[in-house]
Amino acid sequence: MGGIKVIGIPMSTCTQRVLVVLIEKGAEYVVEPLDMMKGAHKQPEHLAIQPFGQIPVIEDGKFKLFESRAIVRYVAEKYEGQGPSLYGKTLHEKALVEQWLAVEIEEFNAPITAAVVQLVLGPKFKGIPADEAIVSASLEKLEKVLDVYEAQLAKNKFLAGNFLSIADLVHLPFLFLLVGVAKRGEVVTSRKHVHEWYETLSSLPSWKKVLALAA
Amino acid sequence: MGGIKVIGIPMSTCTQRVLVVLIEKGAEYVVEPLDMMKGAHKQPEHLAIQPFGQIPVIEDGKFKLFESRAIVRYVAEKYEGQGPSLYGKTLHEKALVEQWLAVEIEEFNAPITAAVVQLVLGPKFKGIPADEAIVSASLEKLEKVLDVYEAQLAKNKFLAGNFLSIADLVHLPFLFLLVGVAKRGEVVTSRKHVHEWYETLSSLPSWKKVLALAA
Ligand SMILES: N[C@@H](CCC(=O)N[C@@H](CS)C(=O)NCC(=O)O)C(=O)O
Ligand SMILES: N[C@@H](CCC(=O)N[C@@H](CS)C(=O)NCC(=O)O)C(=O)O
Repeated sequence: MGGIKVIGIPMSTCTQRVLVVLIEKGAEYVVEPLDMMKGAHKQPEHLAIQPFGQIPVIEDGKFKLFESRAIVRYVAEKYEGQGPSLYGKTLHEKALVEQWLAVEIEEFNAPITAAVVQLVLGPKFKGIPADEAIVSASLEKLEKVLDVYEAQLAKNKFLAGNFLSIADLVHLPFLFLLVGVAKRGEVVTSRKHVHEWYETLSSLPSWKKVLALAA
Repeated sequence: MGGIKVIGIPMSTCTQRVLVVLIEKGAEYVVEPLDMMKGAHKQPEHLAIQPFGQIPVIEDGKFKLFESRAIVRYVAEKYEGQGPSLYGKTLHEKALVEQWLAVEIEEFNAPITAAVVQLVLGPKFKGIPADEAIVSASLEKLEKVLDVYEAQLAKNKFLAGNFLSIADLVHLPFLFLLVGVAKRGEVVTSRKHVHEWYETLSSLPSWKKVLALAA
């Protein structure tokens, strides 16, 4: 058994980020769910492998790794020779993958998370209705970021160039919650190339499989 | 001339993050300063290479790259065979470097930036005195993160293991502003291993050189 054990929950965005890359790569994996309702992620055994008390964590034999965006890089690098090259084939392609991974975490992630917390996660898990003022402020920030994406995706089919990479895939869980679940994706669908990019990503068989696991 | 052109300002933390890695690697580079006081970073020529209107950007021949944390990875990878191996030597070492790079940007960066903006950048560049309520709230968040660092640095000399890496170096610019400039480094100096780690990093000849460039 050479599979990677994913400690996480397929319904959570951070776990989905890892799963879509594992599946896209055709890597062997198994999910070990954690009972977060019971607070298993704050217990000593879990804190020993994820000191911030979060998911996901992977175990690959004896090797343990946390942080979803570090895990996707590890999977892309480990399975370099298998499936699509999700990290670029040259030094320069790889650097551009890293550039857009940095943009995702530094520019994209905060506003879309804030919107999705209001629109989906708060209502669903805490019974708190969305605060529309926070939603519009967040979507306004997100629009500025997506303007940059639109210009980039007008030049290339994907963020780092004309190849699918982990830089694209890390965007998918929150984009799907905004567009596919909350049905508040005007900021995406009103931008031609961002819309096409989202359609391409959300139609990937690997993503459909993640959604089936999460259902 | 095979040097890397760094478009930035040696006094700025984001540029320093790149410079310390270039110098540590012994890479050839040249700094091309941008007149940010005059808003050069928001002009079309700069926006064409950095769509968010920020610094730093590098040019390596015709290849252009922005995002300081993508640039440090590029430099570490390009100069893999030269100077210290700042990205780890094995797949697992590299994954741990990525894990701590993710922690830096997702846990460490926001609270220390908030504190340093109040303590140093606001007073110095905008003449606004520090809001001590924001400072203490930020330092309190930072302490929780540094508790995790303390446990990790008790096991290894550096974050990703017993080797200096880009995961350590990216922390240096803001740590230095907090400890060395604002003199508000109790959160660092009260933690034995974090303190030793900071002393090691801030004593590096490469960092002294960055400070000299910034002076
Ligand atoms: N930076 C972490 C964030 C992980 C994260 O926020 N995980 C969430 C689930 S999506 C979690 O575990 N939340 C529980 C908590 O923070 O207490 C990563 O990307 O792995
Ligand atoms: N995520 C970017 C952040 C760059 C950044 O914030 N740069 C600052 C200087 S340290 C800047 O250019 N500020 C001007 C602005 O944002 O308008 C990076 O790491 O390169």
